[in-house]
Amino acid sequence: MLVDCLDGSEVAAAVYQYANGVIDQRLPDSDVELEPEWALQDPADYVRTLQHVVPEVLVLAGVRPEEVGGVGIDFTSCTMLPTAADGTPLCELPELRGRPHAWVKLWKHHAAQPEADEVNAVAQERGEPWLPRYGGKISSEWFFPKALQILHEDPEVYVRADRLIEAADWIVWQLTGVETRNNCTAGYKAIWSRAAGFPSAEYFGALDPRFAGVVDEKMSRSIVSIGRRAGRLTERAAAWTGLRPGTPVAVANVDAHVSAPAVGGIEPGTVVVIMGTSNCHILLGERLAEVEGMCGVVEDGVVPGLLGYEAGQSAVGDIFAWFVANAVPPQIHELARREGSDVHRVLEEEAAGLAAGESGLLVLDWWNGNRSVLVDAGLSGCVVGLELATRPAELYRALLEATAFGTRVIIDAFERESVSVDRIVACGGLPHRNRLLVQIYADVLGRTIEVSSSQQAPALGAAMFGALAGGAFGSIREASERMAAPIAETYLPDHGKRRAYDELYAEYVRLHDLFGRGGDDVMKTLKRLRAEARQAVVPS
Amino acid sequence: MLVDCLDGSEVAAAVYQYANGVIDQRLPDSDVELEPEWALQDPADYVRTLQHVVPEVLVLAGVRPEEVGGVGIDFTSCTMLPTAADGTPLCELPELRGRPHAWVKLWKHHAAQPEADEVNAVAQERGEPWLPRYGGKISSEWFFPKALQILHEDPEVYVRADRLIEAADWIVWQLTGVETRNNCTAGYKAIWSRAAGFPSAEYFGALDPRFAGVVDEKMSRSIVSIGRRAGRLTERAAAWTGLRPGTPVAVANVDAHVSAPAVGGIEPGTVVVIMGTSNCHILLGERLAEVEGMCGVVEDGVVPGLLGYEAGQSAVGDIFAWFVANAVPPQIHELARREGSDVHRVLEEEAAGLAAGESGLLVLDWWNGNRSVLVDAGLSGCVVGLELATRPAELYRALLEATAFGTRVIIDAFERESVSVDRIVACGGLPHRNRLLVQIYADVLGRTIEVSSSQQAPALGAAMFGALAGGAFGSIREASERMAAPIAETYLPDHGKRRAYDELYAEYVRLHDLFGRGGDDVMKTLKRLRAEARQAVVPS
Repeated sequence: MLVDCLDGSEVAAAVYQYANGVIDQRLPDSDVELEPEWALQDPADYVRTLQHVVPEVLVLAGVRPEEVGGVGIDFTSCTMLPTAADGTPLCELPELRGRPHAWVKLWKHHAAQPEADEVNAVAQERGEPWLPRYGGKISSEWFFPKALQILHEDPEVYVRADRLIEAADWIVWQLTGVETRNNCTAGYKAIWSRAAGFPSAEYFGALDPRFAGVVDEKMSRSIVSIGRRAGRLTERAAAWTGLRPGTPVAVANVDAHVSAPAVGGIEPGTVVVIMGTSNCHILLGERLAEVEGMCGVVEDGVVPGLLGYEAGQSAVGDIFAWFVANAVPPQIHELARREGSDVHRVLEEEAAGLAAGESGLLVLDWWNGNRSVLVDAGLSGCVVGLELATRPAELYRALLEATAFGTRVIIDAFERESVSVDRIVACGGLPHRNRLLVQIYADVLGRTIEVSSSQQAPALGAAMFGALAGGAFGSIREASERMAAPIAETYLPDHGKRRAYDELYAEYVRLHDLFGRGGDDVMKTLKRLRAEARQAVVPS
Repeated sequence: MLVDCLDGSEVAAAVYQYANGVIDQRLPDSDVELEPEWALQDPADYVRTLQHVVPEVLVLAGVRPEEVGGVGIDFTSCTMLPTAADGTPLCELPELRGRPHAWVKLWKHHAAQPEADEVNAVAQERGEPWLPRYGGKISSEWFFPKALQILHEDPEVYVRADRLIEAADWIVWQLTGVETRNNCTAGYKAIWSRAAGFPSAEYFGALDPRFAGVVDEKMSRSIVSIGRRAGRLTERAAAWTGLRPGTPVAVANVDAHVSAPAVGGIEPGTVVVIMGTSNCHILLGERLAEVEGMCGVVEDGVVPGLLGYEAGQSAVGDIFAWFVANAVPPQIHELARREGSDVHRVLEEEAAGLAAGESGLLVLDWWNGNRSVLVDAGLSGCVVGLELATRPAELYRALLEATAFGTRVIIDAFERESVSVDRIVACGGLPHRNRLLVQIYADVLGRTIEVSSSQQAPALGAAMFGALAGGAFGSIREASERMAAPIAETYLPDHGKRRAYDELYAEYVRLHDLFGRGGDDVMKTLKRLRAEARQAVVPS
């Protein structure tokens, strides 16, 4: 996205569809199959994106390269890869191309749960002081579980990896020729803090003696703050993008975190909810609190001078998409076609006619595990209340409601620790596509929800950091004041629904605690039985 | 069905599709809407069936009326209706036609749960001696809860009802002009036994003073055993059917119970499982035992000289049909069309490729409540283990498995009370249509399952009783020996699956007990919230 620094307006935007998308079945051009819970990407797709998208945007905008003052990159996280010392991804080395661990591990790669369990158990045993900053649990999605999985399962790839790096930083490295490490991913995903640095070599060694030197051997202790300049565009990257060599490039950032300044949500007490395939909640605070199951709290992690709290739900739009792809019968697809509408909209319209509680259904929204507050990728989705009379639109509504309950659990956890929530701003693609969803969030939370007009908040936020790197502003706060997208729409809670939703929420919380806090381990048992069945390969 | 008495072979069969089918939305030709959980039928459909089907069968068979030695009727139960003294259904009186309680309440009418709760509570309070014979609980599907619902909700219809009668007996009344009451429905559905008769007037009066005289005012204490002749065809019924006036007509019987002699399952220790929209389990025993949640045990209820135990699952094929109608995406319907197959078969083929436990899913099969062993129509279905990778065939397999677990719970309950199960014979339409289902039952139960060749076991069983009424045999045992359908196929359990299924079953039982025995009342709460939401009618 190319953005005007004067007012934040979008000048042009383009999209490149990754050739290899999410790799979760087999490696590209290969018959190497992946285990369940794996999710990889191809770093060549990132470079191809730069090569396709930037030139296209310049053409669309009719803007000359010298008019571009800076470049900012936001990315998913923790999405990480092993590289050679010069930054070459190991999966691009012919001899390692057929090794799954040589590829990029996407944020939603969930196969490192055993390593995450170990990371947590050893930390607890040793009383590691950093654990409470992460809500008491490190997720399998994060840096060290993923790194440790490489060591455990393919030690040769681990040894060959001169660097283990966030994809966000790797892309900036490709643009600038300089390896930097940003404080946002380091803080949220790699257990780093300005005051204490990384966990100790003793801790890492307790996980595995070969892991003791992971930071010094494969990472860096030099962490650069977001808002700073990482470097300038190299000749090679200029040729890729059509931009001017020497164009300033900002330190890399994370899609969710960068959305807060983009939607003007950088005051303490504001929660920015980035709603898309998953939900991410960014909350700024002035006081350090230890909140159960938060993804992390990082000083200056979102904007300088404030504590940035992160929490999240690991599947939201992904659940609705799963439902439409796997569980909606032909007659509804047919109706959508006849009305020139889409399936989501047809379901939404019918679901909007139901009162709170009328579906008779309650759902636990853990199709992709739980990222907050339980932090357990071993959990799974659950539907209760099915009857012969249950209709697809009722299920659809129950799925929407479940994700709203999931957000309420997170906000309740913050408020329990006196991190107050005064304002909620929603952004991302979902709130624009699904009005019923936002209204349900307002009703379930009993709070007003403001929806940002930006449908590309991460790109807008990244552009702000690019502008900052280029010297257009003195601070991200200043950039946000000038460039942030206005609020498009405000949803007020319907207090008439409050009682029914409070009752449903109480049931949700009870089931959440039952299945999520060890009262009933059926979800874990089912995953184990599935893994054993797949290993046995005895089809019936 | 017209059957040859010499060997039980089917000479001809015909079907009449009820004009008004199952009435669960609004009354026919009316805008009177029904509440949730209601299910009615139109008695005129039963007469039209006789008028269409019998003449058609005679023509198809090329058989003369005088060659027909007897008529037997089997029917669903408890399906009951209020009539005038001459047998005219109250719903056929113009002034009562718009009153839902004047119609036939179909077996799966579930709106009398509050009355069932009362029937059980008062019985427990008074220590009624008959309660253990019904597994400790009377179902909302049975006679007195349904009768009491009429009294509570439409006392005028209750007062106008000179008779309250099982539809099975009502049809025989229409054929013979004689009102009889068979011991099978009386025993299983109306709390009657040869030794003790009906519950006392004191008991009924404790439910409602107006209900004290229900038996003497609206029923009959003269109960006739199955296997006897009810009467002979009247001139009117002969005109309807094209049969000879005076043709012997057997005492009415129940579809499930009559299947036992039809498939040759009348030895002690044999369970006959009638698998269709729901499952019914008929087990013959020599010893009276009180088994938790059985539907009932009746002396001579299935064959003379033995105790007939009944248990059941209130939705089986209905769940699979619900799934195909509501939750299977277009690509699978499309594939079925392309292959000239049907959706069930496509799902079955893919599901057959999965190992036990490989779906990662566990289902509670209570889409229509639970009839045994929990006897609670207030329960509902539950799916655990959903993930973004979950596919329709995995869900389908989990639904099949859940119904197998449900049958295992029932068989375990019998064996716990030392009612031994030595042999299992399956019949009904489902085992012929879905081979994977039967194999899963064999694997989950760890037992051999014999599938009867008869796809019309109830009709064949009814014909046996017709033959008996006509004097072709001296006993139903003799008729069964001559006419029973042979075993078509035998499914052996795959002991390699035993461990995985034992583990899954243990999880099933734990969730079954959690949600079904009061540990977690979420299903009840959801039904209550839905009822409140519908009453409020505040759409969002």
